[in-house]
Amino acid sequence: MKCFRLFAVVCALLVSGVAWSQDKVVYHISETDSQALAGLRSVRNHLDTDPTAKIVVVAIGNGVDFLMEGAKDKNGSDFAGPVSALLGRGVRFEVCEITLKLRDLQREKFILDAEYTPSGVVRLTKLQLQGYAYIRP
Amino acid sequence: MKCFRLFAVVCALLVSGVAWSQDKVVYHISETDSQALAGLRSVRNHLDTDPTAKIVVVAIGNGVDFLMEGAKDKNGSDFAGPVSALLGRGVRFEVCEITLKLRDLQREKFILDAEYTPSGVVRLTKLQLQGYAYIRP
Amino acid sequence: MKCFRLFAVVCALLVSGVAWSQDKVVYHISETDSQALAGLRSVRNHLDTDPTAKIVVVAIGNGVDFLMEGAKDKNGSDFAGPVSALLGRGVRFEVCEITLKLRDLQREKFILDAEYTPSGVVRLTKLQLQGYAYIRP
Repeated sequence: MKCFRLFAVVCALLVSGVAWSQDKVVYHISETDSQALAGLRSVRNHLDTDPTAKIVVVAIGNGVDFLMEGAKDKNGSDFAGPVSALLGRGVRFEVCEITLKLRDLQREKFILDAEYTPSGVVRLTKLQLQGYAYIRP
Repeated sequence: MKCFRLFAVVCALLVSGVAWSQDKVVYHISETDSQALAGLRSVRNHLDTDPTAKIVVVAIGNGVDFLMEGAKDKNGSDFAGPVSALLGRGVRFEVCEITLKLRDLQREKFILDAEYTPSGVVRLTKLQLQGYAYIRP
Repeated sequence: MKCFRLFAVVCALLVSGVAWSQDKVVYHISETDSQALAGLRSVRNHLDTDPTAKIVVVAIGNGVDFLMEGAKDKNGSDFAGPVSALLGRGVRFEVCEITLKLRDLQREKFILDAEYTPSGVVRLTKLQLQGYAYIRP
């Protein structure tokens, strides 16, 4: 019985240790042309060096385009490949809903795994105030 | 009397609750051409979604120009309109004084409601260390 | 003896006070052409206004070029001058090692005082989570 308690305590410490040591960071993409490709590479490099990092990418304005179905980068390659690889590693991609409204875009245009946030800038703020670092690629 | 004390306590809690829940964020504008218009729109959208947010815009280098009297955006529209609308909603606009010195600009050039800070980058740093989130539009 | 203890306590308080009041900030440079010159000026202005600030410049991607031996800005002036002036004032310049690998660059290409970090974006994150403000010039 004592042994079990000790085991439980050790497990709890390990779990809280992992939670404590997990770095959280939000990437801010506001232009697909100049930022998306470099941003996705940075996120991948980030996870290669720190695989436990919790990464959210918030896309605003012209920065949402790389998350549309069939979007291609300036070299003509699909964004779908690198995006889905990062989704598979736990990265979240959130699209600003004010942008959708202002640019008259429908959710159907976007890849299935995209998530949505009422306002990209409010989200960037709230995540930072919750302890996320901020990177603008 | 007890009733009054209770009332005072409840008021104090409410006030501190509001202060606690108010998000603070600093926007960094360093180029009028590429950032000011998008930045002002983002600030407006920010307040539309989170009306209690406390927002400071720090303008540095070529980013101070949109706060000059008579400044126009690339579409030929006055910056005065959107800036004064945001001032009316509590946004503060702060101009870097080192920029004024380096570019030999006088305060008379700027709109009356502009505020001034000795160094834009020091201000960006101090606000973040005081709990402000940071957004570079 | 009591006097000495008092002195020690006062010293300790002063030292911790200095440490407490020292602002820390990381500058993120990811493009030499558009950011390096303005970034170095900002760092200099930062220290002119707040001489005790602890400043780290993290260079990533095309942002590492200004730290190469013999690098020149768009006006044809050497970057070496302003960089070494800032090194003398305690600024640290850190080059992303993933960038070196991806661009097949060797450390010998860089100025002697450059430092290295395994991943620029992980470093930007960790510094912020350690209490550094973030500025993207």
